[in-house]
Amino acid sequence: MQPLSERPAERLKAIEPDTRLDLGRILKARQEISRVFRDTPQFDCPALGALLGCELVIKLETANPIGCFKGRGTEVVASRLARSPGPKVAVCASAGNLGQALAYSGRARGIGVTVIAGASANAAKIDRIRRLGAAVELVEGDIENARERAREITADGDAFLVEDSENLDTCEGAGTIGLELLDGFDRIDAILLALGGGALATGVGHVFKTLSPATEVVCVQPIGAPAMGLSWRARSIVTTDRADTIADGVAGRFPIPAVLGDLLAVADHVPLVEEESILAGMRMLHRHAALVVEPSAALGVAAILEDPLRYRGKRVATVICGSNVMPEAFSAWMQG
Amino acid sequence: MQPLSERPAERLKAIEPDTRLDLGRILKARQEISRVFRDTPQFDCPALGALLGCELVIKLETANPIGCFKGRGTEVVASRLARSPGPKVAVCASAGNLGQALAYSGRARGIGVTVIAGASANAAKIDRIRRLGAAVELVEGDIENARERAREITADGDAFLVEDSENLDTCEGAGTIGLELLDGFDRIDAILLALGGGALATGVGHVFKTLSPATEVVCVQPIGAPAMGLSWRARSIVTTDRADTIADGVAGRFPIPAVLGDLLAVADHVPLVEEESILAGMRMLHRHAALVVEPSAALGVAAILEDPLRYRGKRVATVICGSNVMPEAFSAWMQG
Repeated sequence: MQPLSERPAERLKAIEPDTRLDLGRILKARQEISRVFRDTPQFDCPALGALLGCELVIKLETANPIGCFKGRGTEVVASRLARSPGPKVAVCASAGNLGQALAYSGRARGIGVTVIAGASANAAKIDRIRRLGAAVELVEGDIENARERAREITADGDAFLVEDSENLDTCEGAGTIGLELLDGFDRIDAILLALGGGALATGVGHVFKTLSPATEVVCVQPIGAPAMGLSWRARSIVTTDRADTIADGVAGRFPIPAVLGDLLAVADHVPLVEEESILAGMRMLHRHAALVVEPSAALGVAAILEDPLRYRGKRVATVICGSNVMPEAFSAWMQG
Repeated sequence: MQPLSERPAERLKAIEPDTRLDLGRILKARQEISRVFRDTPQFDCPALGALLGCELVIKLETANPIGCFKGRGTEVVASRLARSPGPKVAVCASAGNLGQALAYSGRARGIGVTVIAGASANAAKIDRIRRLGAAVELVEGDIENARERAREITADGDAFLVEDSENLDTCEGAGTIGLELLDGFDRIDAILLALGGGALATGVGHVFKTLSPATEVVCVQPIGAPAMGLSWRARSIVTTDRADTIADGVAGRFPIPAVLGDLLAVADHVPLVEEESILAGMRMLHRHAALVVEPSAALGVAAILEDPLRYRGKRVATVICGSNVMPEAFSAWMQG
């Protein structure tokens, strides 16, 4: 069978959900993305599946130079900047993963990159961003303060602001994960996605709802950082005063309205999970699947642990979206 | 260009080195190996390469259900057992990785598996072996005592003994890593391989010496477990009383004569590295390449750290052969 990614978009389109995303652009995005971020490992995990009572498929987005999936989106962003007449400088706010990804993709295409991060961001990630040649500016506060600063310094138009999840390239780049899963497996009953700003959830969700509408799209958020999840339930923006979770990769407080609109069109179920379930998921992924993952990558397993009957006997895929953890923290999390 | 792996062996053969291995069988081995162990990620690592003064290519063999490269060999072993008239039971001695691999491959093909391990083996690996459906027998002592016990219980011929590195399938399966690297990169100046029993080193070494003879094949062993390295230098078997290294995956004491013969034909250089260099290598792989690796997977970087001028400015590939570490140990190793 010809892979989905090589077929013309017209022949694939069932009914696309009503989002800002476009299947044709997602298919084209594949060609912008370096091989190091594409065609990532995807495999059945029988030992862990047996424990969880389902057939568990792992999609592993950590086996690349930056240890996370965000390269898919930044490759599309940087390719567009490189061939368009506008600024050749890009700025993003990032707790670490987007910053690493943009630094990597920018470096490869001659795009200057500045990353704004909260002063409390993971030091190993910040160090790696600098080594990839990007400038880093640390600001007081959390990721939301960093986003504000990034908007400020790009307001004059001399640099391009990469606003994660609002920028369509970040969503459509992430969507290519869905194409690969559907190329590799003839049936997936549920796809479990970490939900932060929404690029992963809306990108992969859009692909599944278009090409495999029977698959349940489950977007999982920590109960300690529930702004987008609560917004999905309320069908309008809910912000929170604090984000209190070990899953720093998904710890936003101010959902973006356009992204919420996309999420409403593709998500079937948005559970909010406890910190203890995230830890249990991380431990199981380590013990039974030989994977070191960052907390946000365990959200899918956490959701199965909290609601096992929903997935019993089904083929459930989850995206392991990042592996960037500090060793001391990881070791402490593994005790228990 | 047609990938190496799809071209007939006759058209590829330059002069094969004088080993027990055969390029034609290595090309065929690819077809026996499940997709979960094949076509693994391989990528330039600019941040780490800059620190090491070379162009570093990572071949990542950890992104699969067992976290190591050994599935390539056991897939070939189990396929052969499944289609041959002999016993449908396989036994191996293993510190953990071969055991997990054989358990995985046996399970998929209806082959019963028993793994013999030393009582001090990594508990997480033993647990995973059991969950993959294999029986585990723990014996007093180290891997060499386990090897003895495995030979004992297979002496009557009712079960097939998989003697790692002596068994050609384990070497030729590992050799497929070399085919993929040579498909992906037009030039590799040096390939750095962990040297334990010798399956990885002779398998990948045979492929490089046949298809890319100008590539320097560097096989790296810890100075604390130097039996095969010393044997290579002496050109005859040297055994040691103890193996004293954190790199448990390569801690053998009794080299196999036939494997030494193969190694003599393919290895250009066999450095013995200090424990401190292995630790430094693990730290760099974590900090600058976002990888959690087991000590044996850091041997290549350790060799560059101890002899940087040898590799200066060259394109150097190393195989990250396993990621199975206990979190507490990993955390302790990262301090420093």
